[in-house]
Parts: sequence; C-alpha cells; structure tokens
Amino acid sequence: MKIKNVCILGAGTLGTRVALQSALSGYKVAVYDISPAALDNSKNIMEKIVRQLAKSSGLEAEAGLNAISGITFTDNPNVAVLDADIINESVLEDVKVKNQVWKLFGKIAPEKTIFTTNTSFLLPSMFADTSGHPAKFCALHFHDVFYAKVVDIMPHSGTDEKLIPVLMEFGKSLEQVPVLVKKENPGYIFNSMLMAFIGAAGKLLTGEVASIEDIDKSWMVNFRMPSGPFGILDTIGLDTAWHVTHKMPDKASQAFAALLKKYIDAGKLGEKTGEGFYTYPNPAYKAPGFLN
Amino acid sequence: MKIKNVCILGAGTLGTRVALQSALSGYKVAVYDISPAALDNSKNIMEKIVRQLAKSSGLEAEAGLNAISGITFTDNPNVAVLDADIINESVLEDVKVKNQVWKLFGKIAPEKTIFTTNTSFLLPSMFADTSGHPAKFCALHFHDVFYAKVVDIMPHSGTDEKLIPVLMEFGKSLEQVPVLVKKENPGYIFNSMLMAFIGAAGKLLTGEVASIEDIDKSWMVNFRMPSGPFGILDTIGLDTAWHVTHKMPDKASQAFAALLKKYIDAGKLGEKTGEGFYTYPNPAYKAPGFLN
Ligand SMILES: NC(=O)c1ccc[n+]([C@@H]2O[C@H](COP(=O)([O-])OP(=O)(O)OC[C@H]3O[C@@H](n4cnc5c(N)ncnc54)[C@H](O)[C@@H]3O)[C@@H](O)[C@H]2O)c1
Ligand SMILES: NC(=O)c1ccc[n+]([C@@H]2O[C@H](COP(=O)([O-])OP(=O)(O)OC[C@H]3O[C@@H](n4cnc5c(N)ncnc54)[C@H](O)[C@@H]3O)[C@@H](O)[C@H]2O)c1
Repeated sequence: MKIKNVCILGAGTLGTRVALQSALSGYKVAVYDISPAALDNSKNIMEKIVRQLAKSSGLEAEAGLNAISGITFTDNPNVAVLDADIINESVLEDVKVKNQVWKLFGKIAPEKTIFTTNTSFLLPSMFADTSGHPAKFCALHFHDVFYAKVVDIMPHSGTDEKLIPVLMEFGKSLEQVPVLVKKENPGYIFNSMLMAFIGAAGKLLTGEVASIEDIDKSWMVNFRMPSGPFGILDTIGLDTAWHVTHKMPDKASQAFAALLKKYIDAGKLGEKTGEGFYTYPNPAYKAPGFLN
Repeated sequence: MKIKNVCILGAGTLGTRVALQSALSGYKVAVYDISPAALDNSKNIMEKIVRQLAKSSGLEAEAGLNAISGITFTDNPNVAVLDADIINESVLEDVKVKNQVWKLFGKIAPEKTIFTTNTSFLLPSMFADTSGHPAKFCALHFHDVFYAKVVDIMPHSGTDEKLIPVLMEFGKSLEQVPVLVKKENPGYIFNSMLMAFIGAAGKLLTGEVASIEDIDKSWMVNFRMPSGPFGILDTIGLDTAWHVTHKMPDKASQAFAALLKKYIDAGKLGEKTGEGFYTYPNPAYKAPGFLN
C-alpha cells in the first residue's frame, strides 16, 4: 500500500514536528487537536522550525512555508481523518485520553487507515483493541524528528506483519532511521539504554561516590559529548525521568527517584523551569573551562 | 609537595601512554617492566604515538622524540624508583602480580613517594597495606591518556586526604580532566555508567527485542556518536566485557555473559581478533549508508 495522506492527532510538541516533516516530505497532512489554541500555536512553531532549518540545513524557507500552508489544521475529527492512509497519534501521554481518542478514530477512520501511536512509556497493546483494528495498530515512535532522527517501529503481538515494511518505508521517507523493536518493550530501544546509564549516574550520586559535575565530566570527556547524564536529565525534564524511575523496584532507583522528587517539589524540573541540576540559560557544564 | 620525578611500573598499553604524557609534560620519567622486550616495545610505541600526535595535534615531532630520549627504561626496580615522587602502577591486571610488585616497591621507594595504581577492576584497598604505606596509597586511573583524557582519583578509606589536591594538580599537568571518586567504587565513574548502558543493550539483544544493528543505530543517531554499544564492545574487547559481566548476579547480565562467552569461545574478541559483533577492518557500522 502507498501512503499519501497523513493524519496527525495532537498538535503539541511532537505532533507538530511529525506533521511538519510529513508535509516537507510531500505528504498531504491534516493535524487534529481538541484545542484550537494548540492548533494555532502548532502552525506558529512550524514556521519557526522552518526558519531555523533554513539557516542550519539546506531547506529553502519559502518551500517550507509553502508546505505548511498546505496542511489542514482542524478540531473536527471527521475532517482530519478523511481519506487518511495513516494516523500517527501524539496526544497527551495519558491512558484515558489516548483510549478516548482511539475509540473515536477507530470508528470514523476509513477502512484503509493504519493506526500508529507515538506513546513514550505506554504500549501499543493498551490501545490496539480500543481502536477496533488491532491488526492494523502499531507503535511508530519518533524522537524529536529534526535532531534525533530515529523512529521506532514496535508492533504488539497482534500487529499484522505486513505493516512493518510499510512503516519502515514511511519512516525513511520522513528522513528518519527506522529501527524495529521486535516485541513490546517499555522504552523501545534507546530509552532503555538511556535510562540504564542515567540510573547508574543516579546511583553514583545518591551513593555519594562522585559529584554531579564529576559524573558529567567523565561522560563528556570519554564520549566527547556536549553533556553528561545530569545535563541530559535537565533537558529531558526531571519530572519525566521521575515518572520512569519511581516505578523501578530496586533500591538504587528508589533512592534516585526520591532525590528527583526533592528537586521537583522545589520547582526544579530542569531547563524548562530555569533550574534543575544546573541553572539556565548558562549551565556550568556549557561554560568554557568546565573540562579543565 | 611538588612532583618532579615519575616512576611508571609496567610498560604495556597503558604504562607506555602515561609515561609518554608525563615526559611530554616535562617530568623526569622512569619506566620499569619485568620484561626487557616490553621495555623495547614501549619505546617504539611511544615514537609511533608521537608521530601520530605530530599529525593530529600541535605537537612537534622532534620535541616529542626528545622527551622520549630522556626517559629511563629499566628492568631494575632500584634504578626505576630512585628519587621517585610518585609511582603510577600499570602492571598486569592480576592480584598476585600487583601484590608482588607493591610489596617490592613499597620497600625500596624513598620516603617521599606517593603510590598510585591504574587498576581497572580491582580496588586500591587490595594493595594499600601490601605497599606498607596505606596512607600514601591511592588509585590514579587513566583512560587512554591521548583520546579519553580523564583521570579518576579514587582514595581508599585509609588514604591521607592531603594526597587528593596533589593528584588533582598532577592529573591536570598531564592534560587530563581529573575527577574525584569519593569512595571506592568498582568501575570508578565512567565504567559504571558504560557497563550499565552496555548491559541494557545486551538485555535488548538476548531478550530478542532488537538486532545488534538496530540497537547500535538507535544509540548512534540519538547521541550522534560514531559507534553504538556493540561497536564499542568490539573496541573494548568482548573478553574484558565478559570479565565484568559474568560476575553480575542478575538474570539479564548472566544471559549476556553467556552470549559473550559464545563469541569468545569462537575466537571473536572484537576488533583485536578481526571479528566480534562486527567484522574488521571494515565493520558494517562504519560503512556509508549504515544509517539510511
Ligand atoms: N515531546 C517529545 O519529545 C516526545 C517524544 C516522543 C514521544 N512523545 C509522545 O508524544 C505524545 C505527545 O507528547 P507531546 O510532548 O507532544 O505532548 P504535548 O503536551 O506537547 O501535546 C499534547 C497535545 O494533545 C492534545 N490533546 C489533549 N487531549 C486531547 C484529545 N482528547 N484529543 C486531541 N488532542 C488532545 C493537547 O491539546 C496537546 O496539544 C505523548 O504520547 C508522548 O509520550 C513525545
Ligand atoms: N589498556 C587500557 O586501556 C587500560 C586503561 C585503564 C587501566 N588499565 C589498567 O592498567 C594496567 C595495565 O594494563 P595494560 O592494558 O597496560 O596491560 P598490558 O598487558 O599491556 O601491560 C602489562 C605490563 O605489565 C608487565 N608485567 C607483568 N608482570 C610484571 C611484574 N611482575 N613486574 C613488572 N611488570 C610486569 C608486562 O610485562 C606488561 O608489559 C591494568 O591494571 C589495567 O587494568 C588499562
């Protein structure tokens, strides 16, 4: 089957980016959100991203703005899903909300539609039956589309195998590196590894083995990376990290979750609140001389 | 106290590099090894490294070769340790051998000498008493000196605190980023995190969640790194990784250790044997198009 029409559910951070890349890749795109304000905001953010891409990559600003003007932004589900070959869902990370959305779109989508979710921490099997089309349901999980260009394709046990190559091709056409998660795994591939190394960093800190700065330095210097685990946590958001960490039963994770909770309770969620392990906009780890 | 004279024990991979950097940084250096062949080889490798550095960094080849010609290479312990301000030990990673060496050098070193070990997986407390000078004993653990410029300073519980700033300064003078490991921790800082994320990668593989290639791609793309966990394992050596992994009691580590053992038994230790998870000298993950 050939994908031409893309329907994005949720016009937030991620939906906006997947929709924009789909339009830039030549798909006919509709973006649905329950909130008209979110739809307006989404369009503005797309324009900002296009202007940034025009500076940083080869994209022509005009071509980008043209692509945006071809996108349908709507709070009408029927308009959004009309003739959709694929739905990629990026609504709020909340089981209830996602169930509500999938129940609705499972009913009104045309027969041909493939159903995909972007959920970060939930699993496709939680929504496959609700959609009424479990065989056509799969996770298609982007990272941030323009910087980290990976897309995870993660079927649940009832997904029709024929979907996989179609989603692989679709991922490539969006300039992503598609990777196959052969069975359901919370955290897909990258997030499993990320949380493991961040957990180890947390254990070093709560065990008073080393300081935040020295842990970050070790990672940055050895891997020549621009940030270490605590700088990365500030970017991810300490609240997001806590959501994953506090569910892990082992002692070290519990100790680290407790530490994260202290920061969160003090309003320190990371970069987005101006403070986390470091203070922003000029965190110590980005200062010249940090590695001396 | 001021460090001027550096005594390196062990003229293998790491001892050679620490000795060379010490000489380049202006210290008077003596290198001791039990094997005269190892000493000859060490000098040759230093010359190779200097020629590489002359190409890749600002180092003048002649200045580098001059520094090497000032180094004393000797299989005579008394000559090596004569007037040493600091010993940095890089002999075989074997408790017996290290004990033997520390027993000897603890006796013949001058009163002023600081005793440091480069052990990767053992702990300074295992040799501190043997040296006869536990308060002057500390781990000073380099990574590879010229690429990964971190040095871990890890005291045991009996190390005199006054040593720490001296070792910090010494590390900096060797163009390293010194980090403090406040208490004994197997794997110091970086290796703890490295083994955690590699363990997570191993779990994804043995759990048949994803392929070697897709796991590596996820890491490489998200972190813009030149290799992923399995490429990194090939560089570290599967035997070295097995030594750490097979001692971990959890199921996932045991499963991964068993997989590593299969590769090892088939002679696939990684880059150094021409095959590991990938084949060398042209592993798939370095091929153009791997990320497409
Ligand atoms: N932000 C990321 O970097 C990222 C990365 C990968 C996956 N994800 C996943 O994508 C999804 C969205 O995340 P986000 O960061 O874009 O969130 P967000 O909060 O920025 O956006 C969520 C959007 O959903 C809309 N929404 C809420 N209820 C709705 C409903 N009933 N019907 C339609 N729209 C509704 C909201 O108005 C909002 O615009 C989540 O499942 C998240 O786990 C996010
Ligand atoms: N190679 C690395 O990248 C690296 C990194 C960090 C730490 N280390 C640590 O450094 C130490 C050395 O590792 P390496 O990779 O250089 O090993 P290596 O095998 O290359 O060198 C070991 C040297 O020790 C010598 N030796 C053996 N017995 C001796 C004795 N009784 N007296 C004196 N010399 C003796 C050998 O002749 C050999 O030259 C180990 O403790 C290792 O854990 C290595």
